[in-house]
Amino acid sequence: MAIEIERKFLVAALPPPDELGVGVHLRQGYLAEEGDVEVRVRIAATEATLTVKAGTGLARTEVDVSIPAAQAEDLWAHTVGRRIDKTRYRVALAGPAGPVAEVDVYGGSLAGMCVVEVEFASAAEGAAFDPPGWFGRELTGERGWSNAALARVGRPG
Amino acid sequence: MAIEIERKFLVAALPPPDELGVGVHLRQGYLAEEGDVEVRVRIAATEATLTVKAGTGLARTEVDVSIPAAQAEDLWAHTVGRRIDKTRYRVALAGPAGPVAEVDVYGGSLAGMCVVEVEFASAAEGAAFDPPGWFGRELTGERGWSNAALARVGRPG
Repeated sequence: MAIEIERKFLVAALPPPDELGVGVHLRQGYLAEEGDVEVRVRIAATEATLTVKAGTGLARTEVDVSIPAAQAEDLWAHTVGRRIDKTRYRVALAGPAGPVAEVDVYGGSLAGMCVVEVEFASAAEGAAFDPPGWFGRELTGERGWSNAALARVGRPG
Repeated sequence: MAIEIERKFLVAALPPPDELGVGVHLRQGYLAEEGDVEVRVRIAATEATLTVKAGTGLARTEVDVSIPAAQAEDLWAHTVGRRIDKTRYRVALAGPAGPVAEVDVYGGSLAGMCVVEVEFASAAEGAAFDPPGWFGRELTGERGWSNAALARVGRPG
């Protein structure tokens, strides 16, 4: 089973618009959470998905399925108080075969907050990563900064 | 939005095998429940589905999607203590355009328990339904007899 190696940071300063490119607006609503299982609906302009994440580490499972937009909106109605709204930009970082940074600019009650995530092919690659100057404080592993927690609780104090 | 009109009963005596026909073995595991949302994985011999049920009555939403068997088994691992196992038979009831009864014969820790459900096209049809002699006590609306509750708590005392 593939393991996600990701590091997450606050954004200290957004890259200029020509580097940021065109973003995709996403709404995520958290349907249910129990034990190590979390179920989410995500609605973008062109696609809606239902996602189940379960377990941690090696036992982590993620099931992601497309659902019709109308069904997604019906489910959305059951996520009041557990929602986030963000625009996601994909920025190629410098260097040969440099990784891609996913920059999330939040809206709604989290407006003004920006977070960046980078995914790596191996733990070694992740550890060797040297964040560019526009990255801020590292948030990797801080549960309060998971999207599920941001949706339920808001920005950590 | 279509509303399900269903009535549920204990089975007093199972119909003979030739009326019962061939059953389908199903495993259902409850992944997460929160507020009015319930998320379930169902695994049958030929298909696995992920189902989200949300809300009640008029606002009830049900989203049901097929997922690959391997993903369903990965999710199944996260439903320990919240599972049921049953064989479902479909029995056509007597009368012109008689409804179909879904007979569930439970296994595992609920072995020996049998429940029958009948779905109707309208509330009037449901109210007019005269249960055949092999139906037992009516369970309609008793939450302790929902599959989710049976999976978590077991047979109601």
